[in-house]
Amino acid sequence: MNSPRGSGLYRRSKHHAVPSRPAEAPPAADVGQVRQISSLTNDLVKDMRGLQAKKERAETGLFLAEGLKLVTDAFVAGWSVKTLAYAEKVRSQPMVAKAIAEALARGVDVVEVSEAVLEKISRRDNPQMVVSVIEQCYQPLEAIDADKATVIVALEGIKDPGNLGTIIRTVDSVGASGVILVGETTDPFAIEAVRATMGSIFHVPIARASLDDFLAFARAKRLPMFGTHLAGAVDYRTPDYPEPAVLLMGNEQSGLPPRLVEACTQVIKIPMVGEADSLNLAIATGVTLYEMRRKRLTL
Amino acid sequence: MNSPRGSGLYRRSKHHAVPSRPAEAPPAADVGQVRQISSLTNDLVKDMRGLQAKKERAETGLFLAEGLKLVTDAFVAGWSVKTLAYAEKVRSQPMVAKAIAEALARGVDVVEVSEAVLEKISRRDNPQMVVSVIEQCYQPLEAIDADKATVIVALEGIKDPGNLGTIIRTVDSVGASGVILVGETTDPFAIEAVRATMGSIFHVPIARASLDDFLAFARAKRLPMFGTHLAGAVDYRTPDYPEPAVLLMGNEQSGLPPRLVEACTQVIKIPMVGEADSLNLAIATGVTLYEMRRKRLTL
Repeated sequence: MNSPRGSGLYRRSKHHAVPSRPAEAPPAADVGQVRQISSLTNDLVKDMRGLQAKKERAETGLFLAEGLKLVTDAFVAGWSVKTLAYAEKVRSQPMVAKAIAEALARGVDVVEVSEAVLEKISRRDNPQMVVSVIEQCYQPLEAIDADKATVIVALEGIKDPGNLGTIIRTVDSVGASGVILVGETTDPFAIEAVRATMGSIFHVPIARASLDDFLAFARAKRLPMFGTHLAGAVDYRTPDYPEPAVLLMGNEQSGLPPRLVEACTQVIKIPMVGEADSLNLAIATGVTLYEMRRKRLTL
Repeated sequence: MNSPRGSGLYRRSKHHAVPSRPAEAPPAADVGQVRQISSLTNDLVKDMRGLQAKKERAETGLFLAEGLKLVTDAFVAGWSVKTLAYAEKVRSQPMVAKAIAEALARGVDVVEVSEAVLEKISRRDNPQMVVSVIEQCYQPLEAIDADKATVIVALEGIKDPGNLGTIIRTVDSVGASGVILVGETTDPFAIEAVRATMGSIFHVPIARASLDDFLAFARAKRLPMFGTHLAGAVDYRTPDYPEPAVLLMGNEQSGLPPRLVEACTQVIKIPMVGEADSLNLAIATGVTLYEMRRKRLTL
């Protein structure tokens, strides 16, 4: 299965749809060796750069994570790291050296690259000095334990990867239980989305569902649903929010579609004054999440 | 004063630092003519594209606004539009035709361009079909009427233009009174910032100040200041927020510097659980603003 952008080194994982997270690093005897790559036309470099494209991510089940923090978070959370690339000049920084050692111990492909290579992979002028390739991980809808959930955030048709990443970060911060991507949405493993999560991508369960499957799931679990809508009749501070519950948000342009509005237990609205037509989607989600969990959060 | 990127058609406005907003359109007798430009090397095209760079924006006192909504908002709010460029194919759309007529009536330079020109100006593959050049407008610190203010948001060292734009949009939505950019910050007139404001850039007063000048202003006006900080001792829901007041937010990486923490009437904190190190700056600002104005907002 050759890809038009690279060599197809990253073949699709058998368990792409529902990967199990590896529990343990392989034994130390598996320690690998660091390779050096400076050629911009190297197959691995082309394959890594290819992961900027949604199609390549879908075909390989992999994604790019920029920076030392993200790969370190991935190791701690037990995600499957495939490749770790770093610039020679940061090799001896203690945290980088630690990540390299961890990667080698886990049998990760570790490559020392030129800064030109990092620029090519990242498509950025000032790239991060560490870039990794990690296996995507979606949870199946059925794996979401609705009984133990606090708030599940369902995002219908969300379009902006930065908004999605910021919402995943907020879900983590507020102690919500996960994100369900409903219908056609942006890719949570897009580089801008991953960047905006600041590592929460490794901690927040993410599931995907068609609108029908999502509604069937919510009905089967008898989950109360709260949706924000500009035509909402109830101030978002009025309901006595139960847990578990679903917070349902529509997309940036059109908001919730009628079928989802009808499925809501209550349609809520955040008061607005001034000239703005609407709040940013991530802001509306954040303000509502902090309200829904208000009584349960303390310093 | 030629610029390295273009012809210097956009000379610096005499009143750049503190422009007054023009109150009225010029009389209809001033109606101009539409020019057509398809050359990518046209001076105007180069000058417009040049406004993607902070240096060019600083030198000319102008900025780029993408899309029909923004230039329409600019007209309504009385901002000084210098140039309106649109693609031939949208000329007869009623809202575009209206904007063109309005622009001609105001003596704005109106140009019909190819889509290739719009791509060049916007540096985007799928550019908006309308792009305008507008005069920047900062308010002097002294012009902020502290007595009549609700919440003034002071942002120290904010780095991300998307965050800044989103905060300006939220300030508008929540009925806060303005934004003070303290110290070295990102440019509110950067294209990503303007885009994220969704038009609120034309409605929210924005001032700039050094840290010293900001502190002198806040002291002279006896404004209570609330700053969020990870080391904050008080739950953000505890204070009985007065108005006027200042909400003080530090930058994305390092938060508030010690001098500003010390200047706070109260240091507040938003509860967090989970694995995230912090909230996104725009989310933290939004959640806190809705809390500060809680008693004063109704549907």
